[in-house]
Amino acid sequence: MPPPPPPAERGLVALLTDFGCGGHHAGVLRGVLLGIAPRARVVDLTHGVPAGDVVLAAWTLRWSWRWFPPGSVFCAVVDPGVGSARRALAAAAGGRFFVGPDNGLLSFALRDAGGPRAVALETPAGAAPTFHGRDLFAPAAARLARGESLAALGPRVDDWHRLAEPAVRRLGAGALAGEVIAVDRWGNLVTSLTRRELEAAGCGRDAVVRVGRRAVRGVHRTYADVPAGEAVALVNSDGHLEVAVNGGRADETLRARRGTTVRVEIGPRR
Amino acid sequence: MPPPPPPAERGLVALLTDFGCGGHHAGVLRGVLLGIAPRARVVDLTHGVPAGDVVLAAWTLRWSWRWFPPGSVFCAVVDPGVGSARRALAAAAGGRFFVGPDNGLLSFALRDAGGPRAVALETPAGAAPTFHGRDLFAPAAARLARGESLAALGPRVDDWHRLAEPAVRRLGAGALAGEVIAVDRWGNLVTSLTRRELEAAGCGRDAVVRVGRRAVRGVHRTYADVPAGEAVALVNSDGHLEVAVNGGRADETLRARRGTTVRVEIGPRR
Amino acid sequence: MPPPPPPAERGLVALLTDFGCGGHHAGVLRGVLLGIAPRARVVDLTHGVPAGDVVLAAWTLRWSWRWFPPGSVFCAVVDPGVGSARRALAAAAGGRFFVGPDNGLLSFALRDAGGPRAVALETPAGAAPTFHGRDLFAPAAARLARGESLAALGPRVDDWHRLAEPAVRRLGAGALAGEVIAVDRWGNLVTSLTRRELEAAGCGRDAVVRVGRRAVRGVHRTYADVPAGEAVALVNSDGHLEVAVNGGRADETLRARRGTTVRVEIGPRR
Repeated sequence: MPPPPPPAERGLVALLTDFGCGGHHAGVLRGVLLGIAPRARVVDLTHGVPAGDVVLAAWTLRWSWRWFPPGSVFCAVVDPGVGSARRALAAAAGGRFFVGPDNGLLSFALRDAGGPRAVALETPAGAAPTFHGRDLFAPAAARLARGESLAALGPRVDDWHRLAEPAVRRLGAGALAGEVIAVDRWGNLVTSLTRRELEAAGCGRDAVVRVGRRAVRGVHRTYADVPAGEAVALVNSDGHLEVAVNGGRADETLRARRGTTVRVEIGPRR
Repeated sequence: MPPPPPPAERGLVALLTDFGCGGHHAGVLRGVLLGIAPRARVVDLTHGVPAGDVVLAAWTLRWSWRWFPPGSVFCAVVDPGVGSARRALAAAAGGRFFVGPDNGLLSFALRDAGGPRAVALETPAGAAPTFHGRDLFAPAAARLARGESLAALGPRVDDWHRLAEPAVRRLGAGALAGEVIAVDRWGNLVTSLTRRELEAAGCGRDAVVRVGRRAVRGVHRTYADVPAGEAVALVNSDGHLEVAVNGGRADETLRARRGTTVRVEIGPRR
Repeated sequence: MPPPPPPAERGLVALLTDFGCGGHHAGVLRGVLLGIAPRARVVDLTHGVPAGDVVLAAWTLRWSWRWFPPGSVFCAVVDPGVGSARRALAAAAGGRFFVGPDNGLLSFALRDAGGPRAVALETPAGAAPTFHGRDLFAPAAARLARGESLAALGPRVDDWHRLAEPAVRRLGAGALAGEVIAVDRWGNLVTSLTRRELEAAGCGRDAVVRVGRRAVRGVHRTYADVPAGEAVALVNSDGHLEVAVNGGRADETLRARRGTTVRVEIGPRR
């Protein structure tokens, strides 16, 4: 992975929080960032992570970081342990920077981006114990966006909190089991099973995907490959097996939600 | 209508999607755009179009494009047919650029903006069949924002999909009928009847507007022209007849929703 | 308080509205602002103020303005009386600018920011009576962002509408009463009682906070100071007494909402 670009090429800060669209918290982050780094461009990755949902935030960051240019700084604040003894991190990996609490939120992205280096951020004197986004994370992200080095932000650490990857279970010779890890806005079921795992198991286009008692036949390219109202399985744009209903909501039709088991029976059925 | 400005005056990209505030999809669009066009300013028109609602997205774009400066690029992605055989378009009209699927989403704006020219976009090799926003539309919008010509993006097409305008029915000499085409955040009922049609029919300030069994008397200037809690009809800021309840929600009070018929009885009643 | 910075240092415009994430209204504000002030950076403070809730908008602005750099322009539009005789204001205070309807929305921030000066904005000919955000407030904010003086925007006024501060009642020697003024995204109850009032009353860490019939013991530093699922009182990052449930929702657990009375019994109980 390339090193981060020189300061002149930095300046993009992407925000990832569970602050929602209401309230002033996301807005205040923007003000603090632009006060410290007036030339930064501050954009939203999302503020719609469900409150306190560190795991979904970690997936979101994993699915997003590579689509932002090298030098981008992610300021990620989903922090139910704010003000407690949990550490705060800044990290560099894959040419991007990542700032956030040491609760696993950054860990999927750091694993994928490669060559991660991390430092521990010190909490500034006077920081509000309940809003480190404003008083700790945004200022650190702004300093990186202005071109400061990672090393200037704190002492190196290597034992940051890693979230466990979801288990993929082999069920005999011809089947895999995973689970729904996210339900998106359209009601699509994003599963823990990735293209890599499906291919390693020899999964072909004629697999059968089971969600509860419902069997969905075939792994297709896109939603419109089946008639409207029918369930369809496909590998989504982030490389995960996804179950959808063309023009409908798979979560309702298949009565599934996060955590629901998904089984894949591989290859031609005999 | 003027031609699009020279490249130096471009650089504003406005996003219109049904991606919602949660999830990473809107954020990823921003990253891709700024990776390709680092000097662009990327702003949201909205991401709150109901999932897959191409018609409401088309109205939204129609009501918005003229308020963005010439040279602006609209990247519009409400695309239930993503990955299917539906074409992808980039277009210029009224001094602005428009990028999106060829499902009618752009058609109201292109009709109003005048002098439209459109080209078909080719899907890049390796594009994810389920996320053309990221792999096709955002890159095309970024190229326009960087100053590339429309012609450089693909071959000209003229038979893009046009949505039908909602019917306005004349009911005898003194009445018009239309329907609710949108319910806004405040519960106001936006109807398909426009100022132009009302004026052509001789509609005056003393018309009676009927929503279901409820008669609303008079066409007023603004919400506060009637006492709090009362229904009021007016021509809204986009030129459409609208029925509201001052300080309340017309959709609930009048039990109306999208598709509800609205009748206007014109002039003094005898 | 310092005077506003010279024009060269302006250019940040923060939006505060009740327009929500759906609909085109917030997007159109951005287009208008960038059409008039192409170099401005337009960011969202929030568009999630509940429809027509001027008081919550005023709190939001009070809690936010100081975190934006001097020279920032706040374009605040929560305007249920749009198009009526209510005045429109632009103001300078505390080195920032504020634009919005004269319905009290700006008043908390102007009081806190210090040294306020205000002018009345004239409604432009042709302005839509129902969307002054687009036709009046955004253009005025853009002119300030471009460097125009406050005085250029209209005649000075001093009698702008001030919202009343919420009452803090002393209940005998050792108790205070206030109310819930906001419920945030996490279900936390933000009260009208501030650190200043608590300290003036001699409130210590061993106070008891009563919400309905429920007693919450102690004023803590942060949510994680109590076990998961337990209620906790603390002074939040905006200086207000807040009641939360660690890892839960205080509004549901304590059956409280805006307006619910909150009592504080100060010091050691005998």
